Amino acid sequence: MFSHSALRTARSFSVSAAVSNRCIFYTQNGDPTKVLRSMTFPKLNPPSPNTLNLKFLLASINPADLNTIEGVYPAKPGPTSNLASNGLGSCEEPVFVGGNEGLAQVTQVGKGVEGIKEGDWVVMDNSQLGTWSTSRNVSFNDVIKLPASGLTEVHGATMTVNPTTAYNMLHDFVDLKEGDWMIQNGANSAVGQLVIQLARERGINNINFVRSRDDMAPLVEHLESLGATKILTYDDLNDKSLRGKVKEWTGGKDIRLALNCVGGEPTTSMTKLLGQDAHLVSYGAMSKKPLSLPTSLHIFKNLTSHGFWQTNWTKSHSRGEKENLISKLAEMMKEGKASIKAPEHTIVTIGATESDQEATEKIRGVFADISLGKFGKKVLLKLEETSL
Amino acid sequence: MFSHSALRTARSFSVSAAVSNRCIFYTQNGDPTKVLRSMTFPKLNPPSPNTLNLKFLLASINPADLNTIEGVYPAKPGPTSNLASNGLGSCEEPVFVGGNEGLAQVTQVGKGVEGIKEGDWVVMDNSQLGTWSTSRNVSFNDVIKLPASGLTEVHGATMTVNPTTAYNMLHDFVDLKEGDWMIQNGANSAVGQLVIQLARERGINNINFVRSRDDMAPLVEHLESLGATKILTYDDLNDKSLRGKVKEWTGGKDIRLALNCVGGEPTTSMTKLLGQDAHLVSYGAMSKKPLSLPTSLHIFKNLTSHGFWQTNWTKSHSRGEKENLISKLAEMMKEGKASIKAPEHTIVTIGATESDQEATEKIRGVFADISLGKFGKKVLLKLEETSL
Repeated sequence: MFSHSALRTARSFSVSAAVSNRCIFYTQNGDPTKVLRSMTFPKLNPPSPNTLNLKFLLASINPADLNTIEGVYPAKPGPTSNLASNGLGSCEEPVFVGGNEGLAQVTQVGKGVEGIKEGDWVVMDNSQLGTWSTSRNVSFNDVIKLPASGLTEVHGATMTVNPTTAYNMLHDFVDLKEGDWMIQNGANSAVGQLVIQLARERGINNINFVRSRDDMAPLVEHLESLGATKILTYDDLNDKSLRGKVKEWTGGKDIRLALNCVGGEPTTSMTKLLGQDAHLVSYGAMSKKPLSLPTSLHIFKNLTSHGFWQTNWTKSHSRGEKENLISKLAEMMKEGKASIKAPEHTIVTIGATESDQEATEKIRGVFADISLGKFGKKVLLKLEETSL
Repeated sequence: MFSHSALRTARSFSVSAAVSNRCIFYTQNGDPTKVLRSMTFPKLNPPSPNTLNLKFLLASINPADLNTIEGVYPAKPGPTSNLASNGLGSCEEPVFVGGNEGLAQVTQVGKGVEGIKEGDWVVMDNSQLGTWSTSRNVSFNDVIKLPASGLTEVHGATMTVNPTTAYNMLHDFVDLKEGDWMIQNGANSAVGQLVIQLARERGINNINFVRSRDDMAPLVEHLESLGATKILTYDDLNDKSLRGKVKEWTGGKDIRLALNCVGGEPTTSMTKLLGQDAHLVSYGAMSKKPLSLPTSLHIFKNLTSHGFWQTNWTKSHSRGEKENLISKLAEMMKEGKASIKAPEHTIVTIGATESDQEATEKIRGVFADISLGKFGKKVLLKLEETSL
C-alpha cells in the first residue's frame, strides 16, 4: 500500500533549503493508519491566471474523510497536479492530498481574479480539494470568501460540511414557518446540534431524539441551551403514549419534516409521528441498518423519503447560491451574535520542527484514535509550515 | 352487524309499486360477506339545482373496496343522504352505498348545470360516491363527462382508478422522454399492464418484474403484446449478472423511475438497478412487507421514495386537470386506436327480478370468491333496475 517513490520524493525535499510546506497525503486507498503520510514540498510558484495561492489556517478531519481514504466513499479526490507543478512531477504514482474542509488565507492572487485579495479568508467551494496542506494553489472558483471579520478560525474551518448540511436540510424540503414543528434523531451529532440552533434562529419547534444514557441531565441541559424544544430518547419511541404527548405539544399541528442520521427501527418509529405530506430526509445511517418504512406511510400519508448529501448540493447549485449560503451562515456565527456556536473540538497541531516521519506517525495516531472513538468531538488539523 | 332498521326499510320499499332502484349498501364496517346488503328504493326525485340524476351502467369492484367496507382503508364514504331524501329518511342508522368507480349515464339535469346533458356518459370525479346503485343523485362537480362515442362500457367503468394511477405515476415524478427507460414490479397487475401500454404509447422502454411460474410463455407473450420491452422474474434479481445485462439493454442510460406495488426484498433489489437522481414510486405492498432501502441509495444516489394514491391526486388537482386526464385516457381507449385495452374482466349481473335476499346472497358470494382469489381478473357489477 505504501508508495516508496512518493516517500522518496518527500524525503528528498525535506533536506532542501527551499522546503517550507507540508501536506498529509496518500497514494493508494486503504486504512488511514497505514496509508497516510506527511510530505514536505517547496514554496508554491506564483499563481497562474484565475488561480490563487492559499495558506491553510485550520482544516477539519471529518468522519467521511476516513471513508474517502479507504476508497469506499463516493466522492473521490483527483490526483493532485499542482503540487507536482511545484516540483513533484517526478512522482510515479498519483498523490492524493487528504482533507475536504478547511479555512485558508489567500497569500497570492493570479491575474483575472476578481473580488478576492491577499489576506482574505476563504472556504472551499468544491469537495476533496485537499485541505490537509500548509498551502495549495486553487482555481478562484474553488473558494468562497468569508466576511472580513468576526469569525474564529474554528468557525471558518468547520463551515462547509455540517452547517451547510443542517441549513439546507431545514430549508430545501419543507417550507417551515415560525411556530411549525420538525423532528430529528441523532440530535447530539454535529449536524444535529446545528439543526437545533438553526431551528431556534427561525422559531421552529424541534423534537430531538438521542440515545438514552445513565445521566441524561448534562446532555439535556446542553441541547436545551442550543435551543432544543423537546428531547426524547429512542426508548421513548416504545412508549405508546408518545403519540398523544407529541400531539399535545404541537397542538395537533402536523409535523412535516424529519431528519435522520440513524436508520433502523427507531427511524421507522419516529417517522410514524409525522403528519400528512411530510418529508423524511436522511443524511446518515449510524445504526448501519437500512431505512425500513411501511408502504402505507408513502401511499396514504404521502410521505416522501429523500437523502441529503452536501457534496451533491454543492455540485447542483450556482456560485451565487453557495456564496449566499456561506454569507448567511457566517453572519450567524459572528461574535456578538453567535446564533451558531463553534463545535466542541480538539486541535491536533503538526509543528514546524516535526520531521515527516514524526508527522506521519502523529496523523496515523489521530486516525487510530478516531477509529477507537476516542475524541467524541470535532478534530481539527493545524499544519505549521516546516522550518527544517 | 346487520342493520334491521335498514333492512326493514328496504323490504317495505320492495313491495311498493314505485320501487325501481337497487343499491348494495352496508350500515356498519365489517366483513363484506356479512355486512353487504341489497336494498331497493324508489325512483329519484327530479334533481335539485347544480345536481344530476345518474343511472349506473357498470361499476367496478376493486380490491380497495373490500378494505373500505372492512373500515381499514383511509378513504371512507360519507353516509348517503340522497337516498334518504328519496324516502329513506326513516333509517335510524347511516347507510353507506358501496362502490368507488363506475360508469353512469345522465338521466336528468338540474338547473344551473352546464356542459352536461341527458344521455351523456360520466365517470366519478370524487372517491367513494357509491357506484353500486342503479341510480344516484350527485353534484355536477362530482362527475366528469366522457367523449360522446367510441368507448365501451367496460372501458368507462374502469377508467378512474387504475388507468389514472398508471398515467400519473408515469408522468408526475420523472420527465421521461422517448427512448428513456423505466422499471416496475407487479407488472402483471391491472396497473402494471396499464403502465406497459402507456409507456409503449410514449416510446418509453420498460423493464417488468413478475413472479416466476412454471410456464412463463403465455404471460410473457401477453405482456409483450401490450408493449413490454423486457420481462424478468423476481428470481432474476438474485442473478449477479443482471446489472450488467440491464446496462447493456439501456446502453448505460440511467433508469430514473421505478414503480412498486410489491415491497420487501425484491423491491430493495430492484431499486439498486436505478441510476442517479431516480424516483421510486410505491402504490401497493402486495408482499405485505415494508419497503427497506439502504440509506446510501438516498444519500449518494439521491434516490427519492414516494407514494402514489389516486385519491390524493384527485383531491389535490383542479377540475381542469382531471378533465384533461380523463380526456387523454378516453382518447387512448377509443375503438380504432385502443392504445389501452379494456382489462380482462367478469361481469356479475344482479337481474331485475332478483329479490333483495337473492341479491344480498349473490354480492356476498362475489366477495367470498374475491377473498379466495377465484377471479384473477377485474370484477364488474351490473345492477339492473328492479321490476318486482
